[in-house]
Amino acid sequence: MMNKLKIIFLFILLPVLAGNLYAQDKMLTMRDAVVGQVSYLYPQYLSMIHWKDTKSFTHVKSDALVAESLKGGSAKEVITLEEINEILKAAGKDALKYIPQYSWKDEVILCMKNENTFIEINTKTKKLEFSNSFDSRGENSDKHKTGRVAYTVENNLYISDEREQIFAVSEEKNRGIVYGQEVHRREFGINKGTFWSPDGSKLAFYRKDETMVSDYPIVNIETRVASLENIKYPMAGMASQNVTLGVYSLENEEIVYMKTGEPKDQYLTSVTWSPDGKSIYIALLNREQNHMKLNCYNASTGELEKTLFEEKNDRYVEPQTPLMFLKTDPEKFIWQSRRDGYNHLYLYDTNGKLVSQITKGDWLVTDIIGFDPKEEYLFIESTEKSPIERHVYKINMKDYSKSEVTKEEGVHKVHLSPDGKYLTDGYSNIKTPKVINLIDANGKKIRNILTSDNPLKNYKMPEAELITIKSADGKTDLHGRLIKPIDFDKSKKYPAIVYVYGGPHAQLVMNSWLGASRLWQYLMAQKGYVMLTIDNRGSANRGFEFESVIHRNVGELEMADQMKGIEYLQELGYVDMERIGVHGWSYGGFMTTSLILNHPDVFKVAVAGGPVIDWSLYEVMYGERYMDTPQENPEGYKKNNLALQANKLEGKLMLIHGAIDPVVVWQNSLKFIRACVENNKQVDYFVYPRHEHNVSGMDRIHLMDKVTNYFEDYLK
Amino acid sequence: MMNKLKIIFLFILLPVLAGNLYAQDKMLTMRDAVVGQVSYLYPQYLSMIHWKDTKSFTHVKSDALVAESLKGGSAKEVITLEEINEILKAAGKDALKYIPQYSWKDEVILCMKNENTFIEINTKTKKLEFSNSFDSRGENSDKHKTGRVAYTVENNLYISDEREQIFAVSEEKNRGIVYGQEVHRREFGINKGTFWSPDGSKLAFYRKDETMVSDYPIVNIETRVASLENIKYPMAGMASQNVTLGVYSLENEEIVYMKTGEPKDQYLTSVTWSPDGKSIYIALLNREQNHMKLNCYNASTGELEKTLFEEKNDRYVEPQTPLMFLKTDPEKFIWQSRRDGYNHLYLYDTNGKLVSQITKGDWLVTDIIGFDPKEEYLFIESTEKSPIERHVYKINMKDYSKSEVTKEEGVHKVHLSPDGKYLTDGYSNIKTPKVINLIDANGKKIRNILTSDNPLKNYKMPEAELITIKSADGKTDLHGRLIKPIDFDKSKKYPAIVYVYGGPHAQLVMNSWLGASRLWQYLMAQKGYVMLTIDNRGSANRGFEFESVIHRNVGELEMADQMKGIEYLQELGYVDMERIGVHGWSYGGFMTTSLILNHPDVFKVAVAGGPVIDWSLYEVMYGERYMDTPQENPEGYKKNNLALQANKLEGKLMLIHGAIDPVVVWQNSLKFIRACVENNKQVDYFVYPRHEHNVSGMDRIHLMDKVTNYFEDYLK
Repeated sequence: MMNKLKIIFLFILLPVLAGNLYAQDKMLTMRDAVVGQVSYLYPQYLSMIHWKDTKSFTHVKSDALVAESLKGGSAKEVITLEEINEILKAAGKDALKYIPQYSWKDEVILCMKNENTFIEINTKTKKLEFSNSFDSRGENSDKHKTGRVAYTVENNLYISDEREQIFAVSEEKNRGIVYGQEVHRREFGINKGTFWSPDGSKLAFYRKDETMVSDYPIVNIETRVASLENIKYPMAGMASQNVTLGVYSLENEEIVYMKTGEPKDQYLTSVTWSPDGKSIYIALLNREQNHMKLNCYNASTGELEKTLFEEKNDRYVEPQTPLMFLKTDPEKFIWQSRRDGYNHLYLYDTNGKLVSQITKGDWLVTDIIGFDPKEEYLFIESTEKSPIERHVYKINMKDYSKSEVTKEEGVHKVHLSPDGKYLTDGYSNIKTPKVINLIDANGKKIRNILTSDNPLKNYKMPEAELITIKSADGKTDLHGRLIKPIDFDKSKKYPAIVYVYGGPHAQLVMNSWLGASRLWQYLMAQKGYVMLTIDNRGSANRGFEFESVIHRNVGELEMADQMKGIEYLQELGYVDMERIGVHGWSYGGFMTTSLILNHPDVFKVAVAGGPVIDWSLYEVMYGERYMDTPQENPEGYKKNNLALQANKLEGKLMLIHGAIDPVVVWQNSLKFIRACVENNKQVDYFVYPRHEHNVSGMDRIHLMDKVTNYFEDYLK
Repeated sequence: MMNKLKIIFLFILLPVLAGNLYAQDKMLTMRDAVVGQVSYLYPQYLSMIHWKDTKSFTHVKSDALVAESLKGGSAKEVITLEEINEILKAAGKDALKYIPQYSWKDEVILCMKNENTFIEINTKTKKLEFSNSFDSRGENSDKHKTGRVAYTVENNLYISDEREQIFAVSEEKNRGIVYGQEVHRREFGINKGTFWSPDGSKLAFYRKDETMVSDYPIVNIETRVASLENIKYPMAGMASQNVTLGVYSLENEEIVYMKTGEPKDQYLTSVTWSPDGKSIYIALLNREQNHMKLNCYNASTGELEKTLFEEKNDRYVEPQTPLMFLKTDPEKFIWQSRRDGYNHLYLYDTNGKLVSQITKGDWLVTDIIGFDPKEEYLFIESTEKSPIERHVYKINMKDYSKSEVTKEEGVHKVHLSPDGKYLTDGYSNIKTPKVINLIDANGKKIRNILTSDNPLKNYKMPEAELITIKSADGKTDLHGRLIKPIDFDKSKKYPAIVYVYGGPHAQLVMNSWLGASRLWQYLMAQKGYVMLTIDNRGSANRGFEFESVIHRNVGELEMADQMKGIEYLQELGYVDMERIGVHGWSYGGFMTTSLILNHPDVFKVAVAGGPVIDWSLYEVMYGERYMDTPQENPEGYKKNNLALQANKLEGKLMLIHGAIDPVVVWQNSLKFIRACVENNKQVDYFVYPRHEHNVSGMDRIHLMDKVTNYFEDYLK
């Protein structure tokens, strides 16, 4: 759910307006908080870092791609937007408006995409080396290094080969059957539906049959007569999509489906080609999500070749990453699993034999950075130092001994050079907006590339601190973030607002710039509120037990942990316990509503956005993982059905929903409102008629003003 | 629109609860205002008065039908519910829960309906004389005195004859084609779809083809997966229903359609059988609603026999009543028309020759009560004495001279005895809850039947007065109602709320009990608000010019008149002009929103329910009458499209809508909210997820609390 929540802002970086105050006394406007945080108040950074070769990396600097050299010195222009556009113009191609996402095919060839044209430019000769323009309606494009491009038009899948010859992989008329797109509602780390074989001769693709899935009515009010735009939305316990994996051969233009068998509503995850292109690995997970088989299929016949190993868990198994084959030893691969309680790396051979557990400990691997060319050293990112920090470690693949690469406290994000010798090391922490250093593989700093100014230096910023409290189980540490009002006076009594998410796959508190908080929370602290956020049990990056303790009973332990946050507020002494508010969205909307219903003595004002009200209205993939099906767990679904608890409402509660929300369907909050009316409970409501699961773009200013006004009207 | 607004409360009269305060100091609760006004705080009255014979009339008194005699004396039991149920039980029929609507077939035979059984009981012999049980799914039942019953099941029409033999008039599979139901969205006074010929041998019925009308999506959130319940909703300027009139003969079981011709989207109104059952009269009105032809068709062949006369008007013609044939001279009939500016009666012969205009003057006939048996005298109800009163007059059919029958000031409702010699005369006025007298045809009081106590005598009631102001044209009188706060002190400054409807077919101010106000307005006056209501130009019962002045430009003159009400408030001297609010529903929601957008300096807080925001989203029949089509009147539709004016919002505005509103579709308020978001204007919203065009039943308490809280939060 959290992934779907991420808000992509496409604001161009705006210069600080002339005429602004320059003392440390500016107050945040809502525009600052919403738009500014991701544009003009964002720390300085390098945009789109990619290593070009072993000696230099590039990034985008306004309208040019520039290279930073290991040797130091100022950044050198590699190619400008103007030059690229001259090249494109000469080839009769459309111009770019700005430099887009790019990659280096080798030290010279720059790969980019402009609308529906993939281009490769020789940055030395300034010539267009290659282009492939595919259907202007094409989506989900996936280019192989040969230049072949897979793409979808509506529900069908096509290939435009390196000579722009078109192959129709599918010609399906039934819109309920979809080829080449992501499946399983993007759960299990799935974000695409096509997988090129290593040599580009074959294309594996998902085929999703949704014909048996309920149509869910979404109404578009923008047409003269409101019109219906059904989506396929499989609700917990109901018929779910049937997914298979096909392999299309460009040689014989035929499809072979992998024989993944029954039951048809199982999950096909972690799709990976073998390095020789002969086999395909699929982690097959049953609908119950408690039994995974890592299977190998013959890509030419679709036959099951072997089951390498299985993983089971009474609660759930959640494969999220593909296999990572070693280049120097292609019979071995790295597998990520939480089987010992934390996400760790395991080295397997293709017979399914466990060679060794690579990482181990009560912390978890958050990312694999990569190998050096000889694969002697593996670079990973983990939570070993602290759950709220991210550090990079180098693992010796001989003995799996591990050494720290990044040093400074905070959250690091690195890019490894092709020879595995250097890294760009960008980090921030609650006191540091952004530093980017060039370091070597042992963490030795070569030189500083960038140190950002404090973008908020002219603002009167509230004090923020990262805190740790004990969870309701009395032993588990929970991380939190406390922001105090400006002009803080310990002898005063302040109202407080808890900002909560609380669900799996999300972590709100990090030791990164601003403590990973949205600026809105600082804005509220400027207005005089104590702002608290606690990552309760159930949230991300703390291990399987911490997360899965919520299984079949979501809401209860999360609330118990949030109440420990309330105890913490009470102990502070300066919080007016008669003026506690709570706000959250999505799972956080569920939490917010749950909290004000179950703790009316504590929470006086609440704003719940896009809330899940009844988990039986949520979808199969995410919902059944944590709640099982309503048939299997009727008590659980009844217990946390908030519509059945509307009679407990006492404080001021506003629900907000996007009317075309395809994630947490509108029905959720409408059912709650209906229940409040039936119980004669006053409740407030707002709808964003043309927004989906969150309110993004400029309209977010309206949203956050609405939320703010509610607290100002009723909590202050 | 107003008819659809009427809220039917089915609350059983509740005894005043023991333990209540009995001094004049009780304050109205919201339950009192909403439920009480139509039940335990309603004045005493006689329920369901019908003359039984020339000497007595009956009414329902708890569980018995009782008769009041001309001679006086106490009411006598005619039959009890228990007796009726014994009769029904003996006949194997279901028992009644209470005494339903009834009528007298003659002096002895009582006609009733219990669920899907029509019954006729001999009140002398206490025997069941007749019954006709039709399909339990049957709706729209229509019984002829022969005992034949027409009824519909889904979209088809059936007849159960006096021997309960079933005839299928239609067997249409296409649900878009509907037989025997009301058409034209109940405009033009249409409230049924079947018309028995005088002798019951034939049944005329509407056939409505809606297949070409847009499906409008209404979403039902009560099903597990929200489901779609499309309605047919023809929007202004778009394809509209095609209606024809068929005549089914029970003799030959055949249908003949009246040849009403083209264009097919015309209106068929005022359907009336000729007394001899050979012809059918239809007032054919063109889609533009500016040209009506009163046509006579041969009921056996469907051929047009003649056009009796035509009515045209640049603005609109609005036939709303059937022809009323004289019994003593069946070649003559009475026709109602606003052709001279006011609704008056015209006597025609069946050749279309105008015999005489019966009534005339700058007032209008609101109802025809009936004739004496010889048809020497016609009794009518009119606004002659005052637009806010209703009085009954007796017209001598020889010379059309007129004499007043009812005397006391106020709104009278009468029932005429079969011999035309006596009437029950019930009336109320702003000071009189309810009086029912028995009077003779000259208005002479025979005796008092009932004088109600003041049901609010124990309440501390605010003072209400009926006022008259000049409209914005400087000359037209507008009627209004002013309610002052309790403990009124002229030296104080009070906030004021305008309650507005403002559209055609409605009149809010009457000299009847409470001034025709809802008790909510008194409740608000108890809370300290001055409550004002003005019936502006456009509203009902003031004549054609007064109403139709809004043509093609609804909103503008209505607002101008409401602003005269504001001037009146200012002149009072005790209204705080910085605290003016406005509230209304439906057309009143349109007015409310228009007023706060166009007069932000005046209106600080507004609550608009079920508002029309964009008249192009309203339906053909009502919408085009006042606005023409969007194609014919693009400027008009643009000018009063409130979504285009969201940028003008300055005060606090809350919109409220029923999510399954089939009258003013939800899209209206959602579009306005959308426009506010786009203009970054804060606006408040509430939705009643399972309510239609208004919030009725017990949930209305929730609604009125919501409205009240909004004014209390922001206007007080």
